[in-house]
Amino acid sequence: MFTRPLNKISNVQRFYAKSASKVHSSKFLVGKDVLTSGQFDRNNLEEMLDIADWMKRKTEQEGVLDLCKDKVSANLFYEASTRTNSSFFTAMTRLGGNCLPVYTQFSSVQKGETVEDTIRVLENYVDVIVMRHPEAGSVATAAKYANVPIINAGDGPNEHPTQALLDLFCIKEEHGTIDGLSIAMVGDLKYGRTVHSLSKLLSHYKVKLYFVSPPELEMPNKVTTILESEKVQFEVSSDLNKVMPKVDVVYMTRIQKERFPDLSDYERVKNSYIMDPSIMALGKKKMILMHSLPRVNEITVEVDEDPRAKYFLQPKYGMYMRMAILASCLGKV
Amino acid sequence: MFTRPLNKISNVQRFYAKSASKVHSSKFLVGKDVLTSGQFDRNNLEEMLDIADWMKRKTEQEGVLDLCKDKVSANLFYEASTRTNSSFFTAMTRLGGNCLPVYTQFSSVQKGETVEDTIRVLENYVDVIVMRHPEAGSVATAAKYANVPIINAGDGPNEHPTQALLDLFCIKEEHGTIDGLSIAMVGDLKYGRTVHSLSKLLSHYKVKLYFVSPPELEMPNKVTTILESEKVQFEVSSDLNKVMPKVDVVYMTRIQKERFPDLSDYERVKNSYIMDPSIMALGKKKMILMHSLPRVNEITVEVDEDPRAKYFLQPKYGMYMRMAILASCLGKV
Amino acid sequence: MFTRPLNKISNVQRFYAKSASKVHSSKFLVGKDVLTSGQFDRNNLEEMLDIADWMKRKTEQEGVLDLCKDKVSANLFYEASTRTNSSFFTAMTRLGGNCLPVYTQFSSVQKGETVEDTIRVLENYVDVIVMRHPEAGSVATAAKYANVPIINAGDGPNEHPTQALLDLFCIKEEHGTIDGLSIAMVGDLKYGRTVHSLSKLLSHYKVKLYFVSPPELEMPNKVTTILESEKVQFEVSSDLNKVMPKVDVVYMTRIQKERFPDLSDYERVKNSYIMDPSIMALGKKKMILMHSLPRVNEITVEVDEDPRAKYFLQPKYGMYMRMAILASCLGKV
Repeated sequence: MFTRPLNKISNVQRFYAKSASKVHSSKFLVGKDVLTSGQFDRNNLEEMLDIADWMKRKTEQEGVLDLCKDKVSANLFYEASTRTNSSFFTAMTRLGGNCLPVYTQFSSVQKGETVEDTIRVLENYVDVIVMRHPEAGSVATAAKYANVPIINAGDGPNEHPTQALLDLFCIKEEHGTIDGLSIAMVGDLKYGRTVHSLSKLLSHYKVKLYFVSPPELEMPNKVTTILESEKVQFEVSSDLNKVMPKVDVVYMTRIQKERFPDLSDYERVKNSYIMDPSIMALGKKKMILMHSLPRVNEITVEVDEDPRAKYFLQPKYGMYMRMAILASCLGKV
Repeated sequence: MFTRPLNKISNVQRFYAKSASKVHSSKFLVGKDVLTSGQFDRNNLEEMLDIADWMKRKTEQEGVLDLCKDKVSANLFYEASTRTNSSFFTAMTRLGGNCLPVYTQFSSVQKGETVEDTIRVLENYVDVIVMRHPEAGSVATAAKYANVPIINAGDGPNEHPTQALLDLFCIKEEHGTIDGLSIAMVGDLKYGRTVHSLSKLLSHYKVKLYFVSPPELEMPNKVTTILESEKVQFEVSSDLNKVMPKVDVVYMTRIQKERFPDLSDYERVKNSYIMDPSIMALGKKKMILMHSLPRVNEITVEVDEDPRAKYFLQPKYGMYMRMAILASCLGKV
Repeated sequence: MFTRPLNKISNVQRFYAKSASKVHSSKFLVGKDVLTSGQFDRNNLEEMLDIADWMKRKTEQEGVLDLCKDKVSANLFYEASTRTNSSFFTAMTRLGGNCLPVYTQFSSVQKGETVEDTIRVLENYVDVIVMRHPEAGSVATAAKYANVPIINAGDGPNEHPTQALLDLFCIKEEHGTIDGLSIAMVGDLKYGRTVHSLSKLLSHYKVKLYFVSPPELEMPNKVTTILESEKVQFEVSSDLNKVMPKVDVVYMTRIQKERFPDLSDYERVKNSYIMDPSIMALGKKKMILMHSLPRVNEITVEVDEDPRAKYFLQPKYGMYMRMAILASCLGKV
């Protein structure tokens, strides 16, 4: 299996080279940024999955660890997100550290301060910055100016690498393996950054992917090209019922109004796929149903009772994976 | 004295039965929700008052305890409340735990997520959820879906059980007893959920109640019926001056504009009772004056200097009582 | 050198006398408020600089101390300020304590509660209150009602004493001394509270000050009078280029639109002084360039690379100074 070693990716390398103080050891994430799912190779992923699993077991026993009791993080969110904010906040807290929540809605950002300046102020106070911003590329730009690790918690339509990592962790924990699985992604595959990032991570594994969407919301070339170059099998379909019996994982996506340039396009496709008990009945006994939440109507509430529904467990895996990421960046693993 | 054992109340019982993981021991609150003042009987109340008193003494000595150092709470507030939010935040902090503040004003709730879904995400991150919501019954609904204890921090006009518990604690600490006291509630007794909940708790004690209000804001039947069935003596009056000399506790309420369907009703009654030094002069030497705050003009600032004014101490009792509640739900007492 | 002993200033004295519980020892800040830069004499300043330096060294080693592990602070901000809020939050956190953030935007303050009442509630929960408010004098008023120490984190156009202390600390750490330095303040000297407070503190040292501004934004009499009475040398100029070669410190200020009663005045002066590499070239090799941030366009981004630019380090000094202040008020030094 082809892996992209981290030191071959020049745009990522640029960030890593920027400051000697960011690199304390040979461990691959220590002192580094987490900006894109593209920066992880197979070895890195396996290491992250192992660390997250260790965090899970340890936290179930102890509630709060003391690994990062000498560390403070900041959640710098230029965009509302209860889920991601809470996940990183509690991840840091359960590592024994503290998290500073920064809500830019009421901040000096309003006085015309640039993101670069805000980052260079904030890094004086904390050891790591978790950042969300509505503009693609903004987090990578911020990272260029920072001497502390920056973790991308979503930069608009672009990347949300820790979401992809937690999805991978959920699959691994629920199925015990990733290699050998068939995985369907359903709904808005064009604008859904979650499924883009997850596809990239899965390209490091021996999986078969099914992309189920209306024709106008198909998985874009930038993703399928990677899959082809990595020799990952995938099938494109618009018929969920036909795909259901074949797969071990179904990943539903929300069709997000705000991503559509043309609202009439949205109206036409918004109810294309709605998972209900009758469709679930077509699935394997051990399949799992995932969703990055919040759901609107893509999954009916009747499905919540189905033991194969894992979307309300995904946030738990998310907290453990973010503990793994934070502790790794802070050199505490 | 009649007590309502917890296991006789079916709608409460429903919540308690929902999850084995919620019940870890025989202690009455461990792993359970706190939804209504109706779920506490005399024994429960005495136990809560004892625990709160222990918290008070212990915190005065140590500042921050380490009882809940392995626990994280969330404050999920769908409605602004500095006081209650701060009280639960610092209660958790002084127990040695951490509190995640969730402000739904900037959250995925805006993307159309239901309260049930939000709760089922949040419970992955934390060990207990303190929730406030403007709709009556919403917190109880949320609790049905949660596997962690839910504490009702106010569901609109309905219930605010921890406020009633802290009021009871204040009375007990200031007077040394509750049995035998005469207690006046003054102002808006119709819409004031505080005095409804407190009345219910006091129904477990040998007290005499005086309900002082304009005729249009009298204590509703749903409360007086309980008092009658519990054989608690009460008198209805609209004359505060006549009641003042008779009572050990005066509980003033704010007449809340937002509760009135008809604004002209509000305008007519809003200044019905204003406590000032001349009225205070009619009271007993050892009476105490309470108010759940914020006050607007129901108590003049001159009264603040009166040693019988306890409303700025109530929040302190509140913090200790909430420490008692959180620690009890988390099985840490 | 003339020093103003603390016990000679009657309006400050009033606050100190208010509560026996506020004074625990002979150390000068224990249990006291920090309201104005005028309350510090030379000895006090030297002590604060020493404590802040100790905090810096200790925190660089340990990350988080355990000095204040039994303490909780509140940040009560009636006005947005990411920088100051984050600074005090992380200062408390790195002392091992906890900070309750209170955002009055969504609070009972909206229900008509006075600042005095809010303070008297909040002090039940916490050991020290850091307060920012847009109205001059409001923090001092609040302090009169509080039994816990109040720290002024900015009261509108009036005072921001901890900013002045951190500026002094930055100068001391960067130059190793304050006595003997020449210090220029540039830009809006009329409305800029930062330079007013800093000037007052510097009046306790043997320095020479240069006030560089457009004629309509000159340093007001209330400040120059103090300097004259303290026999501090100062020169007034509107020509930055001429001043540059003479000084060891250049303190740039933002010309703040919101302080100008007449907008056309603002438009005329807003771009009076813009620091760029060509002006920096006129400066001494060891001079330092400071700014309280956020900057808009007063310093071009090219200057950021100049090793003499210290404005992105000031926040770090700020955190250490605020650790020193909080720990001092809490009797933990």
